Amino acid sequence: MQPRHPVFDEALQRGKARREQFGELGYLRLTEDFRGLAKGTVQLPEGWIAGYPHIGRIYRLEQGLRQQFEAPFWAEEKIDGFNVRIFRYGDEVMALTRGGYVCPFATDRVSELMDLRIFETHPDLVLCAEIAGPENPYTEGGPPFVPEDVRAFVFDMLRIGRTGFLSQAEKRTLIDGFGLPAPVTYGQFTAADWRGLREVLQRLDAEGREGVVLKEDSSRNRRVKYVTRFSGMYDVWIRASDMVELPGDFFTGRVLRLALFVDETGMARDDRLKRDLGNAFLERLFESVEKFKRDGRVYHTFRCRFRKRESAERFMEHIRRILGHTYVVQRRLEPSGPHWLLEFDKEVPKLTGLLHQLFAGAAVVD
Amino acid sequence: MQPRHPVFDEALQRGKARREQFGELGYLRLTEDFRGLAKGTVQLPEGWIAGYPHIGRIYRLEQGLRQQFEAPFWAEEKIDGFNVRIFRYGDEVMALTRGGYVCPFATDRVSELMDLRIFETHPDLVLCAEIAGPENPYTEGGPPFVPEDVRAFVFDMLRIGRTGFLSQAEKRTLIDGFGLPAPVTYGQFTAADWRGLREVLQRLDAEGREGVVLKEDSSRNRRVKYVTRFSGMYDVWIRASDMVELPGDFFTGRVLRLALFVDETGMARDDRLKRDLGNAFLERLFESVEKFKRDGRVYHTFRCRFRKRESAERFMEHIRRILGHTYVVQRRLEPSGPHWLLEFDKEVPKLTGLLHQLFAGAAVVD
Repeated sequence: MQPRHPVFDEALQRGKARREQFGELGYLRLTEDFRGLAKGTVQLPEGWIAGYPHIGRIYRLEQGLRQQFEAPFWAEEKIDGFNVRIFRYGDEVMALTRGGYVCPFATDRVSELMDLRIFETHPDLVLCAEIAGPENPYTEGGPPFVPEDVRAFVFDMLRIGRTGFLSQAEKRTLIDGFGLPAPVTYGQFTAADWRGLREVLQRLDAEGREGVVLKEDSSRNRRVKYVTRFSGMYDVWIRASDMVELPGDFFTGRVLRLALFVDETGMARDDRLKRDLGNAFLERLFESVEKFKRDGRVYHTFRCRFRKRESAERFMEHIRRILGHTYVVQRRLEPSGPHWLLEFDKEVPKLTGLLHQLFAGAAVVD
Repeated sequence: MQPRHPVFDEALQRGKARREQFGELGYLRLTEDFRGLAKGTVQLPEGWIAGYPHIGRIYRLEQGLRQQFEAPFWAEEKIDGFNVRIFRYGDEVMALTRGGYVCPFATDRVSELMDLRIFETHPDLVLCAEIAGPENPYTEGGPPFVPEDVRAFVFDMLRIGRTGFLSQAEKRTLIDGFGLPAPVTYGQFTAADWRGLREVLQRLDAEGREGVVLKEDSSRNRRVKYVTRFSGMYDVWIRASDMVELPGDFFTGRVLRLALFVDETGMARDDRLKRDLGNAFLERLFESVEKFKRDGRVYHTFRCRFRKRESAERFMEHIRRILGHTYVVQRRLEPSGPHWLLEFDKEVPKLTGLLHQLFAGAAVVD
């Protein structure tokens, strides 16, 4: 184990790394990709943890699989949540967000989300997991199979002080051996099998599931993702409540994705598809307009549970800091069964500002 | 009449004006707003013509009218076409585009689109008109009441060498006196009449018409526009065939506009509305995907008619120049009744490029 990655000194000097603090723990965080290390790579006092790399997306199975893979690959379910890297530090287990912050929420809850005994025999392991469910504090919505709170799904493993994932076989052995929660695996495919994989995706789509991450069973361990019509529709539906808050390309990209899914699977281009997409654009936008007319602002209310009150307070500090200008208002923090229940609002400032202007009768030049 | 506007020398030096040529006629054109003159202001050898100013848009009638107008205002139909300024130069009548180019198409056709005798007694007049119809060479589609070719609608008047429009009364007198084609006027309103104007807009919406331009009957002659649900829907439908070619904000802006129209008019938020919007996003996008699969590129075919063959050739040179990198292919130019019929394709290069990449199986990081 190499305690300090050599690029951090240069990264700090060039403003591409920042010092962070989580309780007693001081650490460094890469704020962008740098010298082959991904954004979110973290330097702890006793070792560094590689950032989770970007994964490319294909829009066509037939051509994409042939182009991207040289060997058979595994198809794992892609889960709609937030990405963490879980590791042991001293006596504690902590979780890093994709951006490389220690996440006060995931760190607090991780012991309830999985059996952590794996770290007793594998202290240098890093578990890459998606934390998903309606009560996650970062994003609205979540997968249909997590009806409440959150669950974790371990989908990759790293080691402290190294880049590169464990092989699929090593990962499966550890997941099974320690009973870790993991995404469903739909088996191994080859590029020639694209029709078989397409059938899997049609089923996932019908079940309201997001898609797959495909992982080549080889030393280069190449990864590619591919998502369903449902995923595009759901993303539009969730984020249409914010509309102008996002670059418009967020929406047109999703429409294009879902159109190409429909094209490749031969799904009906019928009134139901059209109504669903129109609904995705309008339903939650109308809700935001109603909210604005009622409360004078557009916001989303998040609920999440913590084991310790202190973690919830630390989380509020964290979210206020990372959202910067966005207004965050705590609504309540109170005991609820074995947990502390936190509720807070995140304002949607650009949409709020625009509606404020428009409802005041402003004329806008476009 | 002031032959040379004093700002042009400075504009040329600072790269905000360009020299242009149309046959024998050399002229200068402002390429952006400069010192109070609008982009598209043109300096001819014997006088200058003000650019057509930007008009702000309100999204709420009730509040917008109250905020924007100090006096009663006229409501004129807004026509979905392209904006020209028509003027006499020597023995000829010419038309400038919004950007300030002499338009070879409008200049060729203007004598068929309106009676030009007005220039005999008013040689310094500039007629601001919308040229609209399915056979215009710049934009696809057009208003429902122009089923073929194009028509012109005179909606404002300027004088050479001056900024500021003629008053509504002067304009109406000239339009009526010379029998010029003009948009429908829905009468005069006050801000307190917003419900009456809303009724007009609901009727326009049901008829598939775009909206209104509101013009204050006062010396400041303030203008504001307001469009229907239909307009937002139609814009999405027309341009979804290009999708990623445009900033995504084009689409989210239209969705927001139509949502606020539905909100203010109390229209049903029903399956029909949703299906129409879903269809607007998908129908022509699917056509583009089909076109790409068939021809390897996405393009639109334009047809338009000219009186003179030479004008069509000049137009092709013009469109090739202004579209720059976009590929323009002439398909045919042949006599058709009293006209020359020009057909050409405009490629949609970004969407073509992206589909090319995706259908080759590329993985895209987003």
